[in-house]
Amino acid sequence: MGALYGAFHFLRLLQTLQPIDKLDVSQKPRLQLRLLDHWDNLDGSIERGYAGRSLWDWKALPENVDSRLRDYARANASIGINGSTLNNVNANAQILTAEYLRRVAAIADVFRPYGVKVYLSARFSAPIELGGLKTADPLDAEVAAWWKQKADEIYKLIPDFGGFLVKANSEGQPGPRTYHRTHADGANMLAAAVAPHKGVVIWRAFVYDMKPGYDRAGAAYENLQPFDGKFAPNVLLQVKNGPIDFQPREPFHPLFGGMSRTQVIPELQITQEYLGFSNHLVFLAQMWREFLDSDTYASGPGSTVTKVVDGSLYHQRLTGMAGVANTGTDRNWTGHHFLQGNWYAFGRLTWNPDLSSRQIADEWIAMTLTHDPKATETIARMMLESHEAVVDYMTPLGLHHLFWGGHHYGPAPWWNTEPRDDWNPVYYHRADAEGIGFDRTATGSNTVNQYHWPVRGQFSNLSTCPDRFLLWFHHVPWDYRVRSGRTLWDEMTLHYQHGVAWVRATRKDWDALSDKIDPDRHAAVAKKLTIQERDAIWWKDACLTYFQTFSERSLPAGVEKPAKTLAEYQAKSLQW
Amino acid sequence: MGALYGAFHFLRLLQTLQPIDKLDVSQKPRLQLRLLDHWDNLDGSIERGYAGRSLWDWKALPENVDSRLRDYARANASIGINGSTLNNVNANAQILTAEYLRRVAAIADVFRPYGVKVYLSARFSAPIELGGLKTADPLDAEVAAWWKQKADEIYKLIPDFGGFLVKANSEGQPGPRTYHRTHADGANMLAAAVAPHKGVVIWRAFVYDMKPGYDRAGAAYENLQPFDGKFAPNVLLQVKNGPIDFQPREPFHPLFGGMSRTQVIPELQITQEYLGFSNHLVFLAQMWREFLDSDTYASGPGSTVTKVVDGSLYHQRLTGMAGVANTGTDRNWTGHHFLQGNWYAFGRLTWNPDLSSRQIADEWIAMTLTHDPKATETIARMMLESHEAVVDYMTPLGLHHLFWGGHHYGPAPWWNTEPRDDWNPVYYHRADAEGIGFDRTATGSNTVNQYHWPVRGQFSNLSTCPDRFLLWFHHVPWDYRVRSGRTLWDEMTLHYQHGVAWVRATRKDWDALSDKIDPDRHAAVAKKLTIQERDAIWWKDACLTYFQTFSERSLPAGVEKPAKTLAEYQAKSLQW
Repeated sequence: MGALYGAFHFLRLLQTLQPIDKLDVSQKPRLQLRLLDHWDNLDGSIERGYAGRSLWDWKALPENVDSRLRDYARANASIGINGSTLNNVNANAQILTAEYLRRVAAIADVFRPYGVKVYLSARFSAPIELGGLKTADPLDAEVAAWWKQKADEIYKLIPDFGGFLVKANSEGQPGPRTYHRTHADGANMLAAAVAPHKGVVIWRAFVYDMKPGYDRAGAAYENLQPFDGKFAPNVLLQVKNGPIDFQPREPFHPLFGGMSRTQVIPELQITQEYLGFSNHLVFLAQMWREFLDSDTYASGPGSTVTKVVDGSLYHQRLTGMAGVANTGTDRNWTGHHFLQGNWYAFGRLTWNPDLSSRQIADEWIAMTLTHDPKATETIARMMLESHEAVVDYMTPLGLHHLFWGGHHYGPAPWWNTEPRDDWNPVYYHRADAEGIGFDRTATGSNTVNQYHWPVRGQFSNLSTCPDRFLLWFHHVPWDYRVRSGRTLWDEMTLHYQHGVAWVRATRKDWDALSDKIDPDRHAAVAKKLTIQERDAIWWKDACLTYFQTFSERSLPAGVEKPAKTLAEYQAKSLQW
Repeated sequence: MGALYGAFHFLRLLQTLQPIDKLDVSQKPRLQLRLLDHWDNLDGSIERGYAGRSLWDWKALPENVDSRLRDYARANASIGINGSTLNNVNANAQILTAEYLRRVAAIADVFRPYGVKVYLSARFSAPIELGGLKTADPLDAEVAAWWKQKADEIYKLIPDFGGFLVKANSEGQPGPRTYHRTHADGANMLAAAVAPHKGVVIWRAFVYDMKPGYDRAGAAYENLQPFDGKFAPNVLLQVKNGPIDFQPREPFHPLFGGMSRTQVIPELQITQEYLGFSNHLVFLAQMWREFLDSDTYASGPGSTVTKVVDGSLYHQRLTGMAGVANTGTDRNWTGHHFLQGNWYAFGRLTWNPDLSSRQIADEWIAMTLTHDPKATETIARMMLESHEAVVDYMTPLGLHHLFWGGHHYGPAPWWNTEPRDDWNPVYYHRADAEGIGFDRTATGSNTVNQYHWPVRGQFSNLSTCPDRFLLWFHHVPWDYRVRSGRTLWDEMTLHYQHGVAWVRATRKDWDALSDKIDPDRHAAVAKKLTIQERDAIWWKDACLTYFQTFSERSLPAGVEKPAKTLAEYQAKSLQW
């Protein structure tokens, strides 16, 4: 594998026109488990997938293995990824039947030469659904025996099988809590089954049982932190980058730096569930950089998320990072040519979490689009600015989850009819006549306390809280003066306007590159940018029209008036 | 379009290494409507599709048009195809809603520069399902008005829309007969709706209402022939190449040469519903050549199907040929690399129905696989022999429809439990202690009479009936001496054995080409050939084991003994 990685690195040097006359390169990956999670269902659909259908054609397997699977494995090897979880974390137990395991083995055979191990999402209730047992209680001997036998069966077919990924007691999935056992009980039982084969269990921390008046942002910490140190040595805890759910921007998750005796790995989302699907150009390296560079202060200054993750802070035995894949059967793999860059960026960051987003962008541009210096400069700027721009036209200043609960695409900040409070946008923005934002300080949910000092203090204090997290931690009056000296209302509207302006300018910049990029891809990206511009205007107009009903303030100079009425935006929001 | 076709022809000359120093080429397509029919459902599945999912991503359209659609249109233009029916003939009326028509228009926009017109399969009951009418009676004024308005709506969006393809009163589809009207009444009503826009209606002749003791092979002729001369000038009647249903081998359909005053076009099946799906290497040009060269004697000797189809016999205004597509989202388009050659062959034959299958094979090999003369010779032989070999191991000597009614993949000659007689293999082979075969002469169903003299006589007479159609037209004693001097039983078993032997030899021939073909495609085809060999043995053993229970004769020297019992083959046949 070293030779393969070395060969790909050499190719990268050639493709990026680096000098190769005096090469003396020594590298090793900083993280051990470098994983793609596929939320692929057995019927070929992909939950939150926006680039076609699943690449795994279960009907054709094991007999016919699409040659794209080799391309997929090779592409992953070229950027350092060494593991792939094939099925949705909302798991169907069928994947563990003998029939499906033969198909999984056929995929593993194709991936093996490229050093990509196969992992599976395990449904916790499989012993009932497949084994005919009456319970899935992790402390029940029969249940443990069933999993042990199942693990043996899997490793007979796939000797280098990676292990199980588990979403338990979350969004309706079964789990140990169903039997009044702990998350550690559940994870450790499965860990015992795969331990003899050197397999791992990756347990997801995405748990948020609804309690009256609770703060969803604090749920995962409350549920999992008490079990720090209780997990078996071959268990990893997979924690989303932020405390809510892959929002355009979130502060880092307090569990990073909050579990010194647990092997915590980040779950990033490459597929753009909350970032315009495969229609919006967003270079996620920038967002991930912000996350990895966040200082948890868990052991004083410099305790960045990177150091928590790569083991330099807690020296855990196993390290890793998982990304929810944005790949599918679309000919360009990711639905939007630029979003291949996010797959690339994720892989490069798993190999070296210190890489700058500019370097990653430059590599990808040179290897994919052009070597022209001026064009590279323009495109790199587009990519590096894109994330901030999308945050501006969707959820600026710490706003979050203004999306309708179904599609997660367009704006529905007025939505208030989901059965669970925390599935309604109004739960998150809490706009009223006085102001807007979710108070997570002592006067509110106080979940800011899940962060270490001085982060806790910085976020709690309205005057020190960064603008970008203002409405995440505070309910702020409309006329509050932010750093710019503008009122919150004016600042918010100008952020939305800036997001729109950026997409407009970017469209022009891209059009000007028509002679530098091959016509097919240039035209395809131009088309996507027209969609992105339409959506940015939609977001700005829908959100401002709605929030204006609370603020009752007029739009400042430079902010374009919405074209439609609130009712029209409310009607539109469900067409997605 | 002439310039485009010319350019592609020039590229073909280059790719096939033809001299281009003194070019003086003048060509025009022999057929006017050169159509691919897609049996694609709106949910992305493809009826009888074996190369992935539908290329039309209705959810993403009209906004996002996969660039493969342009590749598809360009590929079609390069082989002369100028029309594409997007949806399954078992049609869903939804395709005619405004929402879907916008998406269809987006596809038409991509196809237009390549001269590929879009057609749609129309569900005859759409006026009820979409229009809220109480009837779809073609003579009802409201119904006619609804279709006229719908046609106007379509042509507003797609000015060059091709027209409607209709499967009516067939296999449960609604149609004019539902209202005691004729097929002509139904076709002509729709024809009137599209006529102002120069559109056409393509009416399928695949009709076989079950009647006690009837012969399905005669049904289409009985149902449609009486309406010869009754169809409007913009109606074409689409007739399958054979009287049953895309069997590995059938005699030509008696409606060719049977309707001198009707614009008849053939429906060929490129996708291999009855030919091993995308697992078996079969070069269909050979089968189509046999069909097109068949002499109907409709106006004396030399009245070949080609002359019926290209208008030289009846001088109809509109001519054409339709092929049921074998394309899908698989990276290689057709699931099996060699089956791209069938897509190619179909297009070339619509352009020039006189092309020899050897020339088509040589063109395709040179443009796709290799220029090496020895390799070309081997591969061309493989392709040209393949169809006869598959007939040998599936349905030799005029046997037909030994397939299980569901999958149409493996053998189930014993099957006898379908609700309709003519959906059971036993209905077709009629094996008993005396012999085997379907008597279609005067002593049987007498549908041989649907052919012109002397074809009728040649097929009716056991001594003049070609071996390849023997059991299609005759119930033949097991000990009957065929041309070879062998008994029917021995001859049949040797045909099955020959089919198996051919696949074995072909696997070796292909392996020997490993240095002439790129490794990826060589390995992929080699894998398919192992599947084909397994299936050929399966067909031989299952059929011989079953028929032996009637013939009670032993297998002659050179025929390998089946490995399993009849019960085991019967159990296996449903696993598909």
